[in-house]
Amino acid sequence: MTQLTEMGKRARVAARRLAIATTEEKNNALSAIARDLEDNYLRIIDANKIDIEAGENAGLSKALLDRLRLDEKRVADIADSIRELIDLADPVGRLLEQIERPNGLTINKVAVPIGVIGIIYEARPNVTADAATLCLKSGNAVILRGGKEAIHSNMIIAELMRSAISGSCLPPDCIQLISDTSRESANELMRLNGYVDMLIPRGGAGLIRNVVTNSTVPVIETGAGTCHIYVDKAADIDMAATIIFNAKTSRPSVCNACECMLIHQNIAAEALPAIAAELVKKGVEIRGDERTCAILANAVAATGDDWGREYGDYIIACRVVDNIEQAIEHIFDYGTGHSEAIITEDEQQAAKFMSQIDAAAVYHNASTRFTDGGCFGFGAEIGISTQKLHARGPLGLRELTAVKYLVYGDGQIR
Amino acid sequence: MTQLTEMGKRARVAARRLAIATTEEKNNALSAIARDLEDNYLRIIDANKIDIEAGENAGLSKALLDRLRLDEKRVADIADSIRELIDLADPVGRLLEQIERPNGLTINKVAVPIGVIGIIYEARPNVTADAATLCLKSGNAVILRGGKEAIHSNMIIAELMRSAISGSCLPPDCIQLISDTSRESANELMRLNGYVDMLIPRGGAGLIRNVVTNSTVPVIETGAGTCHIYVDKAADIDMAATIIFNAKTSRPSVCNACECMLIHQNIAAEALPAIAAELVKKGVEIRGDERTCAILANAVAATGDDWGREYGDYIIACRVVDNIEQAIEHIFDYGTGHSEAIITEDEQQAAKFMSQIDAAAVYHNASTRFTDGGCFGFGAEIGISTQKLHARGPLGLRELTAVKYLVYGDGQIR
Repeated sequence: MTQLTEMGKRARVAARRLAIATTEEKNNALSAIARDLEDNYLRIIDANKIDIEAGENAGLSKALLDRLRLDEKRVADIADSIRELIDLADPVGRLLEQIERPNGLTINKVAVPIGVIGIIYEARPNVTADAATLCLKSGNAVILRGGKEAIHSNMIIAELMRSAISGSCLPPDCIQLISDTSRESANELMRLNGYVDMLIPRGGAGLIRNVVTNSTVPVIETGAGTCHIYVDKAADIDMAATIIFNAKTSRPSVCNACECMLIHQNIAAEALPAIAAELVKKGVEIRGDERTCAILANAVAATGDDWGREYGDYIIACRVVDNIEQAIEHIFDYGTGHSEAIITEDEQQAAKFMSQIDAAAVYHNASTRFTDGGCFGFGAEIGISTQKLHARGPLGLRELTAVKYLVYGDGQIR
Repeated sequence: MTQLTEMGKRARVAARRLAIATTEEKNNALSAIARDLEDNYLRIIDANKIDIEAGENAGLSKALLDRLRLDEKRVADIADSIRELIDLADPVGRLLEQIERPNGLTINKVAVPIGVIGIIYEARPNVTADAATLCLKSGNAVILRGGKEAIHSNMIIAELMRSAISGSCLPPDCIQLISDTSRESANELMRLNGYVDMLIPRGGAGLIRNVVTNSTVPVIETGAGTCHIYVDKAADIDMAATIIFNAKTSRPSVCNACECMLIHQNIAAEALPAIAAELVKKGVEIRGDERTCAILANAVAATGDDWGREYGDYIIACRVVDNIEQAIEHIFDYGTGHSEAIITEDEQQAAKFMSQIDAAAVYHNASTRFTDGGCFGFGAEIGISTQKLHARGPLGLRELTAVKYLVYGDGQIR
């Protein structure tokens, strides 16, 4: 039996205990974790320094080093997130449906934990605590496989979480971290059927593709976001400019940022300059099709590569479309099923767009930036699912549960 | 572009139209399909004869030939099932949740079709019509890949369904059948990411394992059922005997049949002879552990292989356990997460069992045979899911849908 199979076995045993834990037991463990992380922030920062130094020596980019870095404030933020989690409703045990059958059977559909969740992630050490505590609150044991860049930080955080749990009445194996950061350990985790019930990759497109392709354990894909905003001919132009500016520039690196605007031809001559006047305030480069460039002198000519591209930067693609059908078609061809928006005062056009666009979230007159567990009112989330099975959109606590049918009879046979 | 990619592309186009079809449009298409299958039953039976002859020449077992065979009555049954489907509620468009946010956003969580569903199945030609029409009613395009044994039957059924749809306002590509029954075509379907949103294998353990291992498209596992019935020391013995007899013998080949009984030691001496007296009526062989064999003279000694085994036959394993904990432990070790039951008059023991057993359905004082879409009141189903993601238990129309968030604003930005 390999080391990972051993971990899987221990996780499965811990998951059985955790599945029947009371809300209070779980909250006490979370509270101990928050306290211990905060009390030991110096140890965390010391370990993090080793990762930062190794990263500098390895020539990691400034942005990556920033993601990797922990300080007192960031550790306190992690602890605060855990305390917010304590206040959220326990997703386990909810009665989702009650069915009374003519033969007298009562069938209760209830929410139960999924069991053991595997998380494969990259450089951010805060994911170690965030993901583990979300799993704990939802009654799931977790096996964490972080990136090698953050291994020292991850190990001390995991150790502190495990020792905090030891002081509660739950088993420390509710949280396990794989210390081996080789590609092999990730591959093995992806094939730990029978021990791991669900795998969530968190990171770049390459990581996600690798997990989707190689995993035999069910995967929840937290995919890329190429979000479009369609400005209809009946749009309020000021609103369109404000929303596009927000969706593009409030945080360009995130998956719910807008990457492409589609403008109805009847409104383009008036709307495009107004939108561009906003975007220029943050120096956004507009890559436009021919009709866009004819209106906006300083737009750059888009190439085929610009459609469907996730820039994650102060760049936006722009296409002038003949009508709403062409906008819907463009999104069908290039969208990633994350978040799409229409700006219009015409309710019929809005209804058409909302119904025909196939995405996790479809917006009418609002910014795509709202696709987020907090903004939807779900509290913390573990990612945004862009696939359709199990969960779509923000993966909050409820999305980390499965169902079970409890059937009550008094001797019924079939 | 391969032929299968072409099919995937056509399915995706058809799925877009089907996703916005009204209930009436879908029901009209279903009604035309039922009528055309019935009107053309002679053509179906002729094609089926070719399969039956080929099967006889290939030396297929009598049981397999029986599953393969279609006659007027069986075609009429298929048509009747489709008509029942028409009466079921449309699962698409249901408002699952409505969230009002403090910033004025209204978020509607609604049920939408999944998109394109692939079904890989074995010898039963009725699956061709059953699965395709369930998908149609739930707004999903389907790509069917049946076994080679039934290929002529499947092709005529698919052709008739497609021509029936042609007469409606929906595209015939809502239903496509892969005529190539080679292993390669199945493998290619399993990797048609971007075209196929979900894959459901229907068949034996080998087929399901193959799909789970090789598919990169998300799979809903309709797994094996090794169902246990635990007879607690506080059981009503007559009830236990009646339920076990029903769960074992009413249809031994199905996945919700009971394969193993676990008897509390305090009640074994009295309960076992009573249960055995029922089972003997249908000649059920009891494979017991030592304590069982000490009570039942004609029990056969069980070997290690008998625990966790799905006989699908008139055989049942039996173990005398020290207490409920040992029963729960046995089910943890050998259960497949399908259906498990406790027989007891003690509510506390029942509650413990219901909470600690991790299975799609857990029963108190009822037969495991009820795990079925019809018995749960869901109507027709496409299988029983024994995995935890997306859907667990009977896969009815509602389980063939995904969700979408519709967000309504009046200019909100973040």
